[in-house]
Amino acid sequence: MSWVVGVDIGGTKTVAGLVSKTGEVLDSIIVPTPTHDADAIVATVVECINTIGKSHKPRAVGIGVAGLIDVTGRNVAFAPHLAFVDFPLAQRIEEQTQLSCVIENDATATAWAEYRVGAGHGVHSLLAVTVGTGLGGGVVVSDALMRGATGTAGEVGHIPWVLDGVLCACGARGCLEQYASGSALTRHAREFVASGHLDAQPLLTACDGDIDQLTGNLVTQLAVAGDHACMALIADIGTTLGSGLSAMVAVLDPAMVVVGGGVSAAGELLLQPARIALEQRLIGGAHRPVPPVMKAQCGELAAMVGAGLLAHESAI
Amino acid sequence: MSWVVGVDIGGTKTVAGLVSKTGEVLDSIIVPTPTHDADAIVATVVECINTIGKSHKPRAVGIGVAGLIDVTGRNVAFAPHLAFVDFPLAQRIEEQTQLSCVIENDATATAWAEYRVGAGHGVHSLLAVTVGTGLGGGVVVSDALMRGATGTAGEVGHIPWVLDGVLCACGARGCLEQYASGSALTRHAREFVASGHLDAQPLLTACDGDIDQLTGNLVTQLAVAGDHACMALIADIGTTLGSGLSAMVAVLDPAMVVVGGGVSAAGELLLQPARIALEQRLIGGAHRPVPPVMKAQCGELAAMVGAGLLAHESAI
Repeated sequence: MSWVVGVDIGGTKTVAGLVSKTGEVLDSIIVPTPTHDADAIVATVVECINTIGKSHKPRAVGIGVAGLIDVTGRNVAFAPHLAFVDFPLAQRIEEQTQLSCVIENDATATAWAEYRVGAGHGVHSLLAVTVGTGLGGGVVVSDALMRGATGTAGEVGHIPWVLDGVLCACGARGCLEQYASGSALTRHAREFVASGHLDAQPLLTACDGDIDQLTGNLVTQLAVAGDHACMALIADIGTTLGSGLSAMVAVLDPAMVVVGGGVSAAGELLLQPARIALEQRLIGGAHRPVPPVMKAQCGELAAMVGAGLLAHESAI
Repeated sequence: MSWVVGVDIGGTKTVAGLVSKTGEVLDSIIVPTPTHDADAIVATVVECINTIGKSHKPRAVGIGVAGLIDVTGRNVAFAPHLAFVDFPLAQRIEEQTQLSCVIENDATATAWAEYRVGAGHGVHSLLAVTVGTGLGGGVVVSDALMRGATGTAGEVGHIPWVLDGVLCACGARGCLEQYASGSALTRHAREFVASGHLDAQPLLTACDGDIDQLTGNLVTQLAVAGDHACMALIADIGTTLGSGLSAMVAVLDPAMVVVGGGVSAAGELLLQPARIALEQRLIGGAHRPVPPVMKAQCGELAAMVGAGLLAHESAI
């Protein structure tokens, strides 16, 4: 059996594992991403590759990155959550591992994983959005990844959403990502606790009274456990996500929308409000098929799996 | 030489003419669109085809429509500005003309015209937006029209723009079309004149003191003639258009943006503010190529020409 190492460099954590040609995963590990230091990120990735490669010798490396890949497909042009600016990531990994390396935007890699071996198996087009630290997007059109003219297609998180809104890590104000992501969930939860609302007591208890320890992840866990205030916080993100999807679906008209990323662990608590908002807001919604909104099947490993599949295809 | 009849059914007027395989146009005519009556629209189109077909017998008909075409490519599913709901337009035209007929969304047809014989000649992907009564969009990706899973891709005018904003003809509130179109220009101009501002005097004179006669077209004419207030009204539309383009470019990453439709007659007065806003607002704008924003070369006939080219290709 032939294996590659798949890696997903996210704005919070880096995931790596062995990936087969059909998307099976072996020996995956998760480590924190040293987001503020490009060299440290490279060192982390190389260490992951070396650790994982001990059991089965990989033939190549595929890396999903939470950032814009340039048109050469070799460099990270810009990453709102990582210290990469015009950074030759593929070359650096190849030099330090002696393995050929392909890189791709993480959400684009997620789209490819879901299209090839996940929720989108069988459709010819899909939009995958990753609701994590940020809000990423990847697009498959006519059975092929839509990379765009400069390699940066699918950046759905940075469409303008609120005029003069919350400052985004990308430098602009009011991006959709600031209202429909794990970061938004964290901010909303902290505002909610700070308001002193009685219903915030479970959240305050869960973070040991330290509001700075409150994360979207924690909110998601409490929501799944049945806390009504946290369910409402998730539903609010879902509704905004669905309105945002109406913009993307109007432009792309995909056969399916797949939702991944950490917040998608909330499942229907996130997806059902998103579906309702999408159907209400989509142009001609009553006179056209509205695409189904599905949870990513590859889960939190989707970007890693997609990057691995791309490495397999590139190494053929 | 082989000719087809190209038709563009718009929210205000219908244009028709003979179109050659390479986009040459003969005998074009313009008539008002009877927007509120589907049968009357068909009768108008048939009359245009019969009139134009007298000089050269056409081999087919291609129609661009300001509406959503369904997945069969034969019916108009929904049209915000026309009385078409699940309407079998292609069949009706074929029955009454004995010519084979293809139909396509008008902005998608415009994109094809600009890609094949216009500003986008030579690029492999482009986004065409038509700034007319409404705001339409058409997309070429990898040298092919992006029709989407249900035939409705490219509906850029109906992405949510302002929460609880101006009611749109599509039924939703706050669509981008309500802030970046000829209709928006008309509304803004009327508000400006109604405000009693001294600088509105030329506008008031131009419409003979009747504010209801004020149109976006008139504003465009005065702006091109150098009226500063009208130039500012156009620039405002251009800035909003450019911000909106930043959403579409983030998602689609096209090699070029082509701007057509009636308001594009304002040329650089519209395009330059749009370019500035696009560059300012686009994700990673400083770290990636920003696509050029060009005026449509096929002008007001673009949708007609594109529909004609599609009819030629379909009739091969």
